[in-house]
Amino acid sequence: MTAECSSTKTQLRRHPERGSHDLEVVRTILDEALICHVGFVHDGCPVVIPTIHARRGDTLYLHGSPASRMLRGLASGLAVCVTATLIDGLVLAKSWFHHSLNYRSVVIFGSATVVGDAEEKTEALRVIVEHVKPGRTREARPPNARELSGTLVLSLPITESSAKIRTGGPIDDADDAGHPAWTGVVPVTSPR
Amino acid sequence: MTAECSSTKTQLRRHPERGSHDLEVVRTILDEALICHVGFVHDGCPVVIPTIHARRGDTLYLHGSPASRMLRGLASGLAVCVTATLIDGLVLAKSWFHHSLNYRSVVIFGSATVVGDAEEKTEALRVIVEHVKPGRTREARPPNARELSGTLVLSLPITESSAKIRTGGPIDDADDAGHPAWTGVVPVTSPR
Repeated sequence: MTAECSSTKTQLRRHPERGSHDLEVVRTILDEALICHVGFVHDGCPVVIPTIHARRGDTLYLHGSPASRMLRGLASGLAVCVTATLIDGLVLAKSWFHHSLNYRSVVIFGSATVVGDAEEKTEALRVIVEHVKPGRTREARPPNARELSGTLVLSLPITESSAKIRTGGPIDDADDAGHPAWTGVVPVTSPR
Repeated sequence: MTAECSSTKTQLRRHPERGSHDLEVVRTILDEALICHVGFVHDGCPVVIPTIHARRGDTLYLHGSPASRMLRGLASGLAVCVTATLIDGLVLAKSWFHHSLNYRSVVIFGSATVVGDAEEKTEALRVIVEHVKPGRTREARPPNARELSGTLVLSLPITESSAKIRTGGPIDDADDAGHPAWTGVVPVTSPR
């Protein structure tokens, strides 16, 4: 199953005009999003779990306990879909129908591999802690050998990905021009 | 596949002590989370797409264009996993290893059904617009017949769900007590 799952195969998103495969856009969204949602198939059933991620170059790192069944599943090469979403604004229109959200999202398809090399593993954990709080790895204590072996780190290439973005104000029907409701975008900020 | 996918079957999450099946907790998290992530299986591949939701009683409503392949798939009874996550704090510890996030998340398993009744459909769209911005449905124009038929609304029971929550400060090793790094929780807010 793994090798067959790609963004080309799963073009399920509407509004193709909002799509972008620009890797620089993908990188920016991944860096700005504090967490992602990891999707995989377990006994034929879809499962979506939130987790923290961090990017280094064009690699996305996930981590957790070696006892995590999700991570163990992904470590075995299970197909994975990682989605990260930022909400930028509430789009308030004249009609209920044209209400929307401004957002930026990334969907990555692929399969993860275990990071076994201690140096890369430490570096992956460094970028994950830095992702939570920039500068933090210089203040806190780095992992010792026991903690390193007590952490499973997975890497996933971000190359098989797409971004989708909505920006701008509401698009109202001309017929609604006279409706008195205020329209515009209420900015919101995603946690960082 | 549909009927077999349940939260009982897919107990993939670690930290069972953080779990809760309390429906009141589930309801609160769903109401507070502006968006959710919808997972489903397409040609054997996992797909995770962000979307807005709204809850009424123990029903979760999703909506979109009748042309949406995701919604059409779900409308056909495909198994779905809906996950909503709130991030409440950055947990900064003495060691990289004990860094964490405070969060509240809900995972719902099930299969959705199409809301065909015009009255329930209008009510579902009302709670979705109210979910974006409370009070907004009294200011903006309700849907007309064309807009109603141009919107696909799905309902999903939230009863097959579980919540998972982390709260509190970092749990440091006793050996790290003398390490100088400041520890504590930096509050963050999810968009609302």
